[in-house]
Amino acid sequence: MSLEDQLLMPGQLLARGVCRHLALGHGFSVIEEFVPERGRRVDVMALGPKGEIWVVECKSSRADFMSDGKWQGYLDWCDRYFWAVDQEFPTDLLPEGTGLIVGDAYDAEILRMAPEHKLSGARRNALVRRFAAHAARRLLALRDPDAGMALI
Amino acid sequence: MSLEDQLLMPGQLLARGVCRHLALGHGFSVIEEFVPERGRRVDVMALGPKGEIWVVECKSSRADFMSDGKWQGYLDWCDRYFWAVDQEFPTDLLPEGTGLIVGDAYDAEILRMAPEHKLSGARRNALVRRFAAHAARRLLALRDPDAGMALI
Repeated sequence: MSLEDQLLMPGQLLARGVCRHLALGHGFSVIEEFVPERGRRVDVMALGPKGEIWVVECKSSRADFMSDGKWQGYLDWCDRYFWAVDQEFPTDLLPEGTGLIVGDAYDAEILRMAPEHKLSGARRNALVRRFAAHAARRLLALRDPDAGMALI
Repeated sequence: MSLEDQLLMPGQLLARGVCRHLALGHGFSVIEEFVPERGRRVDVMALGPKGEIWVVECKSSRADFMSDGKWQGYLDWCDRYFWAVDQEFPTDLLPEGTGLIVGDAYDAEILRMAPEHKLSGARRNALVRRFAAHAARRLLALRDPDAGMALI
């Protein structure tokens, strides 16, 4: 296990595998820990080649899932909503009408496509702009820490 | 001079100062070396708090400016177009109807605001989506090189 793998939490490792799969396998752009509105933070936000917006919440354990009282609020911020879990997770717990991704720190796979509930054009445009700002800000923080850390 | 400063070209150092100023001073999100369409690469693409799109071309010398036969094509990809130069640059060379930013590797300042030529809504949406994809891809390449480098 690499140093990075040891430093990341289980949910973050799962998010990494999900991001790899969506980026390399489906041509999506992906960011992590995106805040669509104050008080909400989604694990993975993915922007597809046709402008599709997917949200993926990563659950590392049954307890992690059971303590999440907010997930239904995320449905308003995406066209499709997925759970990502590892192979041990009791997937019977997961609610109907959501997508399912199973993965680990290195890769993932979509086992059940989420139903589509299309965002309005206005909300989509606002979300894409916020996605762009999030990604550019994090990128600047890594490229030019003197400037970027002030923005995080 | 830091190692990074020694590795970057003069135009890239200027772009860094421009990005710092637009991000910290004006609340813009910034990316570098953005390709709005095949065959064109803009030095700095900036996305403003209200969705404004600015392009900044960084010119480190008179020769650098004189050899640029493409700049007018960039006007179609932004609401406002700027040149960024250092304090030694003969600014009389710069064409009318463009903005002027003077800076160095550490900061910059807008000396002349560019006139506004508003993009159409469709092109703006397409550009913001491409901006988002560019920033997310570069960010992934830095955060998770195993996945990200395949996408650059």
